[in-house]
Amino acid sequence: MKLYIGNKNYSSWSMRSWVLLKAFGIAFDEIKLRLLLTPGSAFYKALETVTPAARVPVLVEDDGFAVWDTLAIAEYIAERHPEAAIWPREARARGRARSLCAEMHAGFNALRGRCPMNIEARLHEVGAQQLEADPALRRDLARIEELWTDALQASGGPWLFGTDFGAADAFFAPVAMRVRSYGLPLGPAAAAYVGRLEQHPAVAAWIADALTEQDFIPEDEPYRSKR
Amino acid sequence: MKLYIGNKNYSSWSMRSWVLLKAFGIAFDEIKLRLLLTPGSAFYKALETVTPAARVPVLVEDDGFAVWDTLAIAEYIAERHPEAAIWPREARARGRARSLCAEMHAGFNALRGRCPMNIEARLHEVGAQQLEADPALRRDLARIEELWTDALQASGGPWLFGTDFGAADAFFAPVAMRVRSYGLPLGPAAAAYVGRLEQHPAVAAWIADALTEQDFIPEDEPYRSKR
Ligand SMILES: N[C@@H](CCC(=O)N[C@@H](CS)C(=O)NCC(=O)O)C(=O)O
Ligand SMILES: N[C@@H](CCC(=O)N[C@@H](CS)C(=O)NCC(=O)O)C(=O)O
Repeated sequence: MKLYIGNKNYSSWSMRSWVLLKAFGIAFDEIKLRLLLTPGSAFYKALETVTPAARVPVLVEDDGFAVWDTLAIAEYIAERHPEAAIWPREARARGRARSLCAEMHAGFNALRGRCPMNIEARLHEVGAQQLEADPALRRDLARIEELWTDALQASGGPWLFGTDFGAADAFFAPVAMRVRSYGLPLGPAAAAYVGRLEQHPAVAAWIADALTEQDFIPEDEPYRSKR
Repeated sequence: MKLYIGNKNYSSWSMRSWVLLKAFGIAFDEIKLRLLLTPGSAFYKALETVTPAARVPVLVEDDGFAVWDTLAIAEYIAERHPEAAIWPREARARGRARSLCAEMHAGFNALRGRCPMNIEARLHEVGAQQLEADPALRRDLARIEELWTDALQASGGPWLFGTDFGAADAFFAPVAMRVRSYGLPLGPAAAAYVGRLEQHPAVAAWIADALTEQDFIPEDEPYRSKR
């Protein structure tokens, strides 16, 4: 199995699937494409042969069968690995975990647009300015805080759905990266969860790889002109 | 079980879950909220008591347990009704169906923004103007066409994954509504699929209900000042 991903510093969607596979010890070959999203770029040329959807991540079986999109990949892996609790074991908790992942998947546009993932960067002033400027960003952050604290309280933590790290945690790991980079303020329970996410072995491995990358892609850097 | 939805004329996401439940004969009570998305509107007040995510559709169990978001609802229903082929029976077809639904869920922003669902309206001139004006809309439409024709060809049709109507068809039903309203041009295989979607009993029932609505919501009507 191959997983096509973008730069570890920038590609928040890639991070979700990669972290999920690593967290459960599911073997795969990583194929990293430079996340340069200009028409005709090498990124799109490489993906053309793999998926018509032209986005990373994509999971590709040895015979070429491709599953694209983080949610579809999570479901595919969950079905292929029933021994791994990718989703919570209890039906309602599983329903709730899927609601949260789907909410992330289609929402939080202000957070995604104004605070794009950039693991290596420290942009706390930018974060403060953006929060000041955009009520939608403040609403996104408030909903993240509510969503995390509700789930942690209902499950007892330390992960969103209890004692085991799962798909929902992987889906919010890139949000934790944004909180770090932009210094976004959170209450103690949510901030502690960010700390746990950073230290989860699969997340820590992704961060470590991101920090070794020397790439700087201006299109992914609204706030800097160099590292 | 209750399903909270918005206006049938306008609420494309509500349509997906409603059509899916109806198509499989799964009983539910429908609760329709006027889709007026201004801060503090009755829509948000009604949802506050039901879901923290403040969007329709929401599926609510008799004891108040809520599942929100179309994708999470589809998975929840699929688990609760293993006798219904909400997803294809074959594992890879199931993976592919989920890739397509997830692609719809997070994408096609130009199509969604420029051609918002408005079942009752006939806006063919607007459709032609929008297509002319926006290359992203042309790309969205080309990808829809490719996605439908690929799936129909691989499965043999008449539905995206073969002989049975399923979640993927429900997910693209609102796109068929847009094709109708805005007169968006498609090749013969895709156009014939739109025709089949319109005539599916669950879709036809939703359309009939939409046409009886007398509501006009200016916020959902970028192109008209009255019906
Ligand atoms: N809904 C997709 C989103 C994937 C996505 O947007 N990936 C970005 C990189 S992080 C990408 O490939 N963008 C290419 C493009 O938008 O053209 C998923 O969940 O996998
Ligand atoms: N990702 C959600 C989207 C739901 C959605 O955006 N619904 C619209 C009505 S069609 C809504 O409730 N919007 C309220 C808002 O955005 O505040 C899903 O798949 O259910």
